[in-house]
Amino acid sequence: MKMISAVIKPFKLDDVREALSGIGITGLTVTEVKGFGRQKGHTELYRGAEYVVDFVPKVRLDLAVSDEQVDSVIEVITQAAGTGKIGDGKIFVSNLEHVVRIRTGETNDDAI
Amino acid sequence: MKMISAVIKPFKLDDVREALSGIGITGLTVTEVKGFGRQKGHTELYRGAEYVVDFVPKVRLDLAVSDEQVDSVIEVITQAAGTGKIGDGKIFVSNLEHVVRIRTGETNDDAI
Amino acid sequence: MKMISAVIKPFKLDDVREALSGIGITGLTVTEVKGFGRQKGHTELYRGAEYVVDFVPKVRLDLAVSDEQVDSVIEVITQAAGTGKIGDGKIFVSNLEHVVRIRTGETNDDAI
Ligand SMILES: Nc1ncnc2c1ncn2[C@@H]1O[C@H](COP(=O)(O)OP(=O)(O)OP(=O)(O)O)[C@@H](O)[C@H]1O
Ligand SMILES: Nc1ncnc2c1ncn2[C@@H]1O[C@H](COP(=O)(O)OP(=O)(O)OP(=O)(O)O)[C@@H](O)[C@H]1O
Ligand SMILES: Nc1ncnc2c1ncn2[C@@H]1O[C@H](COP(=O)(O)OP(=O)(O)OP(=O)(O)O)[C@@H](O)[C@H]1O
Ligand SMILES: [Mg+2]
Ligand SMILES: [Mg+2]
Ligand SMILES: [Mg+2]
Repeated sequence: MKMISAVIKPFKLDDVREALSGIGITGLTVTEVKGFGRQKGHTELYRGAEYVVDFVPKVRLDLAVSDEQVDSVIEVITQAAGTGKIGDGKIFVSNLEHVVRIRTGETNDDAI
Repeated sequence: MKMISAVIKPFKLDDVREALSGIGITGLTVTEVKGFGRQKGHTELYRGAEYVVDFVPKVRLDLAVSDEQVDSVIEVITQAAGTGKIGDGKIFVSNLEHVVRIRTGETNDDAI
Repeated sequence: MKMISAVIKPFKLDDVREALSGIGITGLTVTEVKGFGRQKGHTELYRGAEYVVDFVPKVRLDLAVSDEQVDSVIEVITQAAGTGKIGDGKIFVSNLEHVVRIRTGETNDDAI
């Protein structure tokens, strides 16, 4: 299993969730974060306004997925989150050793 | 060392913390998050009210623990966070390579 | 590549970011969190006031870095975030298997 963490533009959250749903992914956790990227000091558009501060509101998605789902999840997030403009975000993949679904006690792939 | 991340119901935070304290775990980090689970489109209870939106407020706990503590931490979280109702949450375990306690410079198991 | 997660005192965020910038690190994600540490029940200073509750506001930094950057990043965070007082924070390092920069499609070290 892998944990896929993606930091994306907040207005893209619904598109990304729908696209993920389309490939069978329903479980995910969303955190509101502040992002600092390469354009420090430059401006970035957010809700039609230019941000002159050097951080930008982003959302972070965390998804535990099975090994087989990793490639399609990355592809779907990349396509659904992309605008072609700076600040589109990043995807980080790390290994997941163990998962438990609390209500049922199921573990690992059955728990995702 | 392992990083244990658990997404649980917010009203269970105090119970979980006390149960963890009871097995000697005091260090943890809590983040307010939004959860999307398998019941997309269905309702889930939150503070006595039914949520018709398809996300639900959750809290995420992150705990760095020693290898020996992993099993008991999972057991304690599962018991203390569980209500038997949908939305009880998930536990994710990943490997941790290095830990530093900033004030003292201690590392790894001594730093947890 | 490694993911470095650091939980620090909020008023130290600017110092840490500037110090990281000084060694060429510009990309990072910041999350507002609540911390529970070893001083449960004791007080900790926050914005000049003593916190009697047993959690304290902290910020969490997540930085994806190349393997070569890990040691200097840890050193810089330790120095810039430290006050010598309790609650200075912790640094957690885990392995990162894959990174994608959404706008360009670049991967791994090129994507950081
Ligand atoms: N190395 C990194 N580690 C952790 N988070 C990062 C890193 N790089 C970027 N991020 C997060 O992702 C968000 C979006 O990054 P962003 O897309 O601006 O990356 P970029 O490298 O500047 O690419 P672009 O040139 O397309 O803007 C940042 O605001 C930050 O929250
Ligand atoms: N695969 C996943 N990846 C990341 N976060 C997840 C995943 N599955 C669940 N979560 C997080 O855990 C929270 C609680 O999940 P939940 O307990 O509803 O899981 P479930 O599989 O729907 O089980 P149940 O049928 O008992 O509700 C979700 O709201 C979400 O934040
Ligand atoms: N084992 C841990 N797992 C996850 N988060 C932790 C852990 N230990 C500490 N933290 C986070 O780091 C924050 C700062 O920890 P803190 O610096 O108080 O650690 P400490 O061990 O109590 O050291 P000190 O004695 O210097 O205060 C905590 O408020 C919590 O958010
Ligand atoms: Mg950028
Ligand atoms: Mg559910
Ligand atoms: Mg402390």
